[in-house]
Amino acid sequence: MKITTKVLFLDDDGQRFFGDGPYQLLLGLEKTGSLRQAAAEMGMAYSKALRLVKQAEKGLGYALTARHIGGTAGGGSRLTPQGKEFLQRYGAYKAACEQADAQLYLEYFSGQR
Amino acid sequence: MKITTKVLFLDDDGQRFFGDGPYQLLLGLEKTGSLRQAAAEMGMAYSKALRLVKQAEKGLGYALTARHIGGTAGGGSRLTPQGKEFLQRYGAYKAACEQADAQLYLEYFSGQR
Repeated sequence: MKITTKVLFLDDDGQRFFGDGPYQLLLGLEKTGSLRQAAAEMGMAYSKALRLVKQAEKGLGYALTARHIGGTAGGGSRLTPQGKEFLQRYGAYKAACEQADAQLYLEYFSGQR
Repeated sequence: MKITTKVLFLDDDGQRFFGDGPYQLLLGLEKTGSLRQAAAEMGMAYSKALRLVKQAEKGLGYALTARHIGGTAGGGSRLTPQGKEFLQRYGAYKAACEQADAQLYLEYFSGQR
């Protein structure tokens, strides 16, 4: 048995705008240079991927991604500097939460299943 | 902006068997004395509620709920003593994780949105 932690960011209306799904998607975008390809690798519809990115950008109040056109690869997307910084920070925060919650698990469930 | 934490329990195959949904459902069962009513109050299909309870019981290896039949209310379900204890423990654990993760949020995102 294992535990896993998901940390969700909610706007003031209680709507989710960031979490593990968008995080994985944006990591994929950084790796592939394409939101469409990043979505496909997660088995996610491109329309959903676009919506997740827009929701995240609206919630945070700044652009996480930028499109570029042309070039040999026919254009694509990349993270903005702010987007890169946010992803790094979120990744570190998520890891810290996972560690803290795993430690608490031992405290609350020691000797239990 | 707020954050919220979800802690999921996974079996050895990585399948989720407990989290916030089953927790809320079982709290509702405790309150109403009926899994069907608890599911309805969450807008959840009864078949899904049954499946969640079975998955949780399989993952934990013991019964969380017991049915009773007859009586003026025509029977229903209640938590087993082990079920009650697990719910209490999970609730306390979840609250501790939320507090720890909120504290970490301040640490990782102070001065940020």
